[in-house]
Amino acid sequence: MHLRLAFIGFGNVARAFARILHLRESKLAERYDLRFSITAIATARHGCIISKDGIELLKAVACVESGGSLTELRDAIDVRDSATLIERCNADLVFETTPLNPDNGEPAITHIRSALTRGIHVVTANKGPIAFAYRELESLASLHGAAFRFEGIVMDGTPIFNLVDSCLPGARVLGFSGVLNSTTNLILTGMEAGQSFEECLADAQRRGIAEADAANDIDGWDAAVKAVALANVLMDSDSRPADVDRKGIRGIKVEDLKSAATAGMALRLVARGKQTTNGVKLTVAPEEVSASSVLGSVRGTSNALVLETDLMGEIAIVETDPGVEQTAYALLSDLIRIRVRRDS
Amino acid sequence: MHLRLAFIGFGNVARAFARILHLRESKLAERYDLRFSITAIATARHGCIISKDGIELLKAVACVESGGSLTELRDAIDVRDSATLIERCNADLVFETTPLNPDNGEPAITHIRSALTRGIHVVTANKGPIAFAYRELESLASLHGAAFRFEGIVMDGTPIFNLVDSCLPGARVLGFSGVLNSTTNLILTGMEAGQSFEECLADAQRRGIAEADAANDIDGWDAAVKAVALANVLMDSDSRPADVDRKGIRGIKVEDLKSAATAGMALRLVARGKQTTNGVKLTVAPEEVSASSVLGSVRGTSNALVLETDLMGEIAIVETDPGVEQTAYALLSDLIRIRVRRDS
Repeated sequence: MHLRLAFIGFGNVARAFARILHLRESKLAERYDLRFSITAIATARHGCIISKDGIELLKAVACVESGGSLTELRDAIDVRDSATLIERCNADLVFETTPLNPDNGEPAITHIRSALTRGIHVVTANKGPIAFAYRELESLASLHGAAFRFEGIVMDGTPIFNLVDSCLPGARVLGFSGVLNSTTNLILTGMEAGQSFEECLADAQRRGIAEADAANDIDGWDAAVKAVALANVLMDSDSRPADVDRKGIRGIKVEDLKSAATAGMALRLVARGKQTTNGVKLTVAPEEVSASSVLGSVRGTSNALVLETDLMGEIAIVETDPGVEQTAYALLSDLIRIRVRRDS
Repeated sequence: MHLRLAFIGFGNVARAFARILHLRESKLAERYDLRFSITAIATARHGCIISKDGIELLKAVACVESGGSLTELRDAIDVRDSATLIERCNADLVFETTPLNPDNGEPAITHIRSALTRGIHVVTANKGPIAFAYRELESLASLHGAAFRFEGIVMDGTPIFNLVDSCLPGARVLGFSGVLNSTTNLILTGMEAGQSFEECLADAQRRGIAEADAANDIDGWDAAVKAVALANVLMDSDSRPADVDRKGIRGIKVEDLKSAATAGMALRLVARGKQTTNGVKLTVAPEEVSASSVLGSVRGTSNALVLETDLMGEIAIVETDPGVEQTAYALLSDLIRIRVRRDS
């Protein structure tokens, strides 16, 4: 099987994925009979191009990383914007990796809607569309016979959505609790070690984990968007980020963490979802958890999600020290999943 | 789709599964278009029967639990032994749940071989066949177009084999570490709380977690068999339990646990596998791990497995306080998996 692939967004995650695709090209052909060509790449600052003969991935990566324009690549047709690109890309599958817009999930939702309506499979690493338009996009995908996958939106490539879908069949998710935001966890665990909030935040920014404006992380907004995505997909909810009872980590002091530690506890920013008679209740707030619990064991940029189910009781999944490669792996795992499912 | 099911072994796990099957009968039909009838049940002490009209599951459960013989059920044909039963059961799928024979995996291997050779799908909760004959049985299954699944053999219904197979495609498992034996973990965490080894063991036996002769658990044999199963399936090894460098928990004293705790550490019986240039190296031994690590966070009968992979880095999966229902769920999840895969 040969798939024509298009990229909407070609930032760190997409380029790390492009490198994996290149490295694994022969393995993918051999193990999954999956061959591919790249028909289009849309970027915000390096042009939007389509190509009839296929774009050489590593040349595109090098072009963007050296600050060039993709329109300089051989046989590149300049299509100006991503909307036109989706119309004309003639792809079988689009990777949508534009940055999160935490207010309304755009323009990613428009990109995905446009692709799915054309029967193009979509793999996204952007949680906005799942938090703001999951039901609509899922229906569209189903209507047009396209796949719509998004493993990477909550815990990078750690299996969550695919885990519940493929490995917990017949079981129902009744609730969840998770440490899902790397910036706040890096800050809280740094403060446990005695650093100040400001030092920890600056460190997270230096390491490229927190943005210059880290309010989305610190005020619990990122964790809230992830909680909504989990509730919408795993618990059949139709929530929006504004529905989350949300409290961030501002105002927490080193002394709070020290006194918690003395009592064998740890402070974590915990996202929770619970099935109630009035639908799914979602909260994000700093909580004292046992230092020797799964959530307490999560330090630095690591993440954990505890799922409470009817038939399988409680299970947890933990991701240790993720980097951009893990998010890139999410795109690969969704690509292979689509390949395997469409084959059979 | 209608599947004819047979049970080889009808102990606690199989009967808990039978209850779930009965409760979920209409859901399985509705959600997975999966209908079933029971064509045969083999037990060690309550007879081996086949039935042309289908066995009523709850009547079979009640019969065995009241100490009766299955041959008393309506339309039951007495077939004497499990070998004859597999030959004559006319089933599409066999659930093999006979007890583990840690020396050679028999008679489960013979049961499974006989079923697969006839093209009958097999779901087992018995780790012996995977530790002693995985390659042979997997080839047989493939040769005869039958499915062979065994999710429950390491951490009950917690996804491990299905997780790697379905949710970590394209990634390679380089190593693992796990707390995989409930009896020893219950003993070690009980000793952490100041109880003696003997008190903890007696408690585990009272609760039905440890057998009267708990040597298989205490000497690390059960954990070793699980480590071999993981290596054979996930790391393409062809190991046997005797290949494991194995040390149990005898001789550990309450003082050892106390001094570890003082240093922020916890003693756990850890099973490890590592890809080396000479194949997979397997060990089972008590280890001091950080009390606030994932393995340290596992207390009582809970289990955890950390997987080290090439593309996805390190992820861990944790099962909290499993009971027989969780092992029974493993059988259900394998059944649904076979149904879904065979459909597509």
